[in-house]
Amino acid sequence: MQTSTDHARLSLNQITTNRWSLAEALEGCLRAEVPAIGIWRHKIADIGLPESRRLVRRAGLRVSSVCRGGMFPAATAAERAARIEDNLRAIDEAAELGTDTLVLVCGPPPDRDIAAARRMVEDAIAALVPYARERKITMAIEPLHPMYAAERSCITSLEEANVLAEKFDADVVGIAVDVYHVWWDAMLEREIARARGRIRGFHVCDWLVPTPDMLMGRGMMGDGCIDIHRIRTLVEAAGYTGLIEVEIFNQRIWDQPGDEVLQQMKERYVSCVLNRGPGAAPAR
Amino acid sequence: MQTSTDHARLSLNQITTNRWSLAEALEGCLRAEVPAIGIWRHKIADIGLPESRRLVRRAGLRVSSVCRGGMFPAATAAERAARIEDNLRAIDEAAELGTDTLVLVCGPPPDRDIAAARRMVEDAIAALVPYARERKITMAIEPLHPMYAAERSCITSLEEANVLAEKFDADVVGIAVDVYHVWWDAMLEREIARARGRIRGFHVCDWLVPTPDMLMGRGMMGDGCIDIHRIRTLVEAAGYTGLIEVEIFNQRIWDQPGDEVLQQMKERYVSCVLNRGPGAAPAR
Repeated sequence: MQTSTDHARLSLNQITTNRWSLAEALEGCLRAEVPAIGIWRHKIADIGLPESRRLVRRAGLRVSSVCRGGMFPAATAAERAARIEDNLRAIDEAAELGTDTLVLVCGPPPDRDIAAARRMVEDAIAALVPYARERKITMAIEPLHPMYAAERSCITSLEEANVLAEKFDADVVGIAVDVYHVWWDAMLEREIARARGRIRGFHVCDWLVPTPDMLMGRGMMGDGCIDIHRIRTLVEAAGYTGLIEVEIFNQRIWDQPGDEVLQQMKERYVSCVLNRGPGAAPAR
Repeated sequence: MQTSTDHARLSLNQITTNRWSLAEALEGCLRAEVPAIGIWRHKIADIGLPESRRLVRRAGLRVSSVCRGGMFPAATAAERAARIEDNLRAIDEAAELGTDTLVLVCGPPPDRDIAAARRMVEDAIAALVPYARERKITMAIEPLHPMYAAERSCITSLEEANVLAEKFDADVVGIAVDVYHVWWDAMLEREIARARGRIRGFHVCDWLVPTPDMLMGRGMMGDGCIDIHRIRTLVEAAGYTGLIEVEIFNQRIWDQPGDEVLQQMKERYVSCVLNRGPGAAPAR
């Protein structure tokens, strides 16, 4: 594939084109000369791991990550063990697809005790470390926006993710920084610097104003209020030079033809991630 | 008024009964034997400050706070000066109504530069300090939930609010802790302890699962997933023994008869704030 220098680090997180199968997303990346992809497990499940691996190898794309492991807290020990078992399979999938990174969305509390849920997350990660190391996979803890604390992840800030990750070796437990989840944080500069050597993923999209929906209201870079360029500069100052995934949950974007989404994504990646461009709309 | 010992610290933040005028809210508190009220400025504006003062004095209720000052960041120096001018009037209103606390919702950034907005907040508070001191009003910085960073407040965590407040004397710049805005924070215990001597307000409601609306989706205590009792224990361990405001933005609750809302509020205050009760619904 011919890829422009500008787009050498660009990766399509395939949720951005959620209507596409894995085969379609790989073909779309080849057509658009996007050199890498982040793969979701439900897309792997649709066709099975062997076929997924065959398609990825044939396409020759780099795989920035598998999304997502995690979802660790549960009300019973049996259910928590089942979640860990499922994460062993996620580690397998990441290894088989040729990435070194499994993104962790750690999961919500099963009840009002969020501190107990956080201990469950730590215990689960500890249980997974030996197998992740054996398969040479880094589990990247992705702190989610605090508005998801009750439904998706009890790990809600970069500081908290750092404190948790630092309990483990950096080759096996890292951090994924998604601008959507952390842009509001006044301690962002401090905590990104603290994550030096652990940042295993950098995801971009934008925060729309107003936000049309808590889950499906994320925007294309440049359409919202996040200074994405600044956060990219911070993660690079902390040593991260890896792939940059565009990950957008937005029904309107999902309903667009994928090829159009990838073209706009490429343009906005240059204007609003690599550079500090105006984007398509004012921030407010 | 006869108030039960259980409800001695209970205050109705009048947004909870937003259909009521100030006169109606005061009368409702008297009927329900709720001993205090938090008053909103738009309700004062409806009838003017002299009449508001007359009604409050006649009712004999304590006033826990005036809501809200703030909204400091703006694109131009002239607009920022106008915001400060408006906050001088808010300080007057607080003083005239017999409270010592003006709650600050600090305001969103006017553009993508959230760090600049935070400097505007600090500058504005600094400009207001002499007059607040003269009128014996503490400005209580309320960190808002990070999901409001683009539209309501660039001050989004208790740590950030503490760092900001600590630049000023504690008698004139304090902190308001609202469980809805901070419950997700893994550093809550540390930051509430750090706020010792500065906590000037404690607000309660609940986080509904799922959240029906980003602004109007707050719940009655016990209907959501927040361990309110734990957070009350933390603020008391940090020395706060003041009034506890129930502040609920929820259209369904606003549409209920106010007297019913106050009765349920009193029950849930005992079962879910003073005690660790089951509430009316499981957390999930």
